Amino acid sequence: MMKALHFDGKLSLQQIPTPRPAPGEALIRVRLAGICGTDRQILDGYSGFRGVLGHEFIGEVVECDVAGWTGKRVVGEINVTCGSCLWCKRGMGRHCANRSVVGIINHQGTFAEFLTLPVSNLHAVPASIPDEAAVFTEPLAAACEIPEQIPNIDGMRTGVFGAGRLGLLISQVLRSAGAHVTLIGRTASKLNLANTWGLKTLNADSPELRPRSFQVVVEATGSPSGLETALRLVEPRGTVVMKSTFHQPAQFDTAKLVVDEITLLGSRCGDFRSALNLLESHAVEVTPLISKVFPLEQGGEAFEYLKNPPCLKVLLSPHG
Amino acid sequence: MMKALHFDGKLSLQQIPTPRPAPGEALIRVRLAGICGTDRQILDGYSGFRGVLGHEFIGEVVECDVAGWTGKRVVGEINVTCGSCLWCKRGMGRHCANRSVVGIINHQGTFAEFLTLPVSNLHAVPASIPDEAAVFTEPLAAACEIPEQIPNIDGMRTGVFGAGRLGLLISQVLRSAGAHVTLIGRTASKLNLANTWGLKTLNADSPELRPRSFQVVVEATGSPSGLETALRLVEPRGTVVMKSTFHQPAQFDTAKLVVDEITLLGSRCGDFRSALNLLESHAVEVTPLISKVFPLEQGGEAFEYLKNPPCLKVLLSPHG
Repeated sequence: MMKALHFDGKLSLQQIPTPRPAPGEALIRVRLAGICGTDRQILDGYSGFRGVLGHEFIGEVVECDVAGWTGKRVVGEINVTCGSCLWCKRGMGRHCANRSVVGIINHQGTFAEFLTLPVSNLHAVPASIPDEAAVFTEPLAAACEIPEQIPNIDGMRTGVFGAGRLGLLISQVLRSAGAHVTLIGRTASKLNLANTWGLKTLNADSPELRPRSFQVVVEATGSPSGLETALRLVEPRGTVVMKSTFHQPAQFDTAKLVVDEITLLGSRCGDFRSALNLLESHAVEVTPLISKVFPLEQGGEAFEYLKNPPCLKVLLSPHG
Repeated sequence: MMKALHFDGKLSLQQIPTPRPAPGEALIRVRLAGICGTDRQILDGYSGFRGVLGHEFIGEVVECDVAGWTGKRVVGEINVTCGSCLWCKRGMGRHCANRSVVGIINHQGTFAEFLTLPVSNLHAVPASIPDEAAVFTEPLAAACEIPEQIPNIDGMRTGVFGAGRLGLLISQVLRSAGAHVTLIGRTASKLNLANTWGLKTLNADSPELRPRSFQVVVEATGSPSGLETALRLVEPRGTVVMKSTFHQPAQFDTAKLVVDEITLLGSRCGDFRSALNLLESHAVEVTPLISKVFPLEQGGEAFEYLKNPPCLKVLLSPHG
């Protein structure tokens, strides 16, 4: 048996059976897990998920029938794919039609002492990357998806709207891809943190923030209303990248999209290797985002703590 | 003085002064004008326009200080640009920051006996294209914008959602660009018309219409709810093109856009030369779209007539 943070309409710590790895899978002891905006959205009804929450983690393999994995420190991709559908065959497994998704669709999550994953989902973590940085691999990979989708972002005037944990990661990733980044937010402490990294920031209410002034705007506020502002900030023929998923539908002015010929680009999971490379080369800062580490038993308090506006990343430690 | 169809919150036929061409402008006698979905949206409050409606026309130049234009049969681009802003300098005059737009923003429209336009907006119409076809140049150019924005559409599974006058033009243009087009609609007479051109059609309620089955879906229903369906029909990493402008905001499921990494592409005016080439080479059929021609004096009745579901294009004839 093991401890796990379970959601069935309400969140509770439960004792559940420790999962058993199937052939080709690893049993992973979770060292640290990160709470993401999507986890909060699930509590509000997003995805209809019931089970153990969480999809960000760093852990170590404690049992595996595939040689070379036992004892390895690993992070894991969240899409568990069928390998045989059209999308898998096209090498687009993240869009597998039959996928389960760790802590989101039909797969036990990371807010537990242990989880199982196919070894094909795992990436060994270089020793130079501490647990507290490696736990950011999944959201950092999601940030890395943007330059994959906009390969010519080098040199572009780029606004990142939303100075939360995701916006702070995205800003750094886009800067490392050569974009001219302005991070736009409302919480002084978060903008100040970005300033210490040499990032340009603007308050969302600043008169310096002009309509139609960015070639690319990334919507990372985590709020459906962020889209309207992002559409206002982007220039004609520009691109708005949507990173957040919401349970509620978003409203927007179609005339603005059509008349200014804006491209609205949905962006989700990204490449773990790119993220690990950025962590290994110290091209991005992640550990200053950690606001607090809670033991797994205090998962409920951790979710409450996350609601404080200055709070950035909250981690859960399943083994004390 | 001249007759004109004027909108000031309500539509009425008025006698107004015949406009005088400024230097570099042509005075154009309107031979035929077409009513567009945008005109109906303006009656519902879109763009806040007040003045003479209409932006589609074929006419002839009756007065012009630039040599070679007087007597020419012409169509005209609707964006009247400043020539000096950032967008004009980049060759993107359709997005000019200071533009007026014929019958939509600060420029008298085409539902009148005469209008003026800079000669730089005009295109001479080849003699082989009759008035009844040439009057479709502007909406056909708008359809031509899609393959400009998706240059690799050749060979792509493409759904055009909305079998109205715009959807019927778009379907033909995309087929001529090499796309595998399915036109999706609800009105049997319109789908039948497309069938006579050899286009594949499906009823919007058909069980053959499967979710996630098109690489590109063009939203041309003229209704905000069309976006939800378009997002359902497009496959992961696919593109939804939005052609219609609405006065009301549209709602959509951001999770679908983000998780499936859809590109939502706003698309507006296009290249008049491409449209004239298609008309001249008979690559598209347009005159079968004409449901009725009304004299300008019956403009109110023409707008009423347009509400009949089987109705396609309604033209106005200012000179009887």
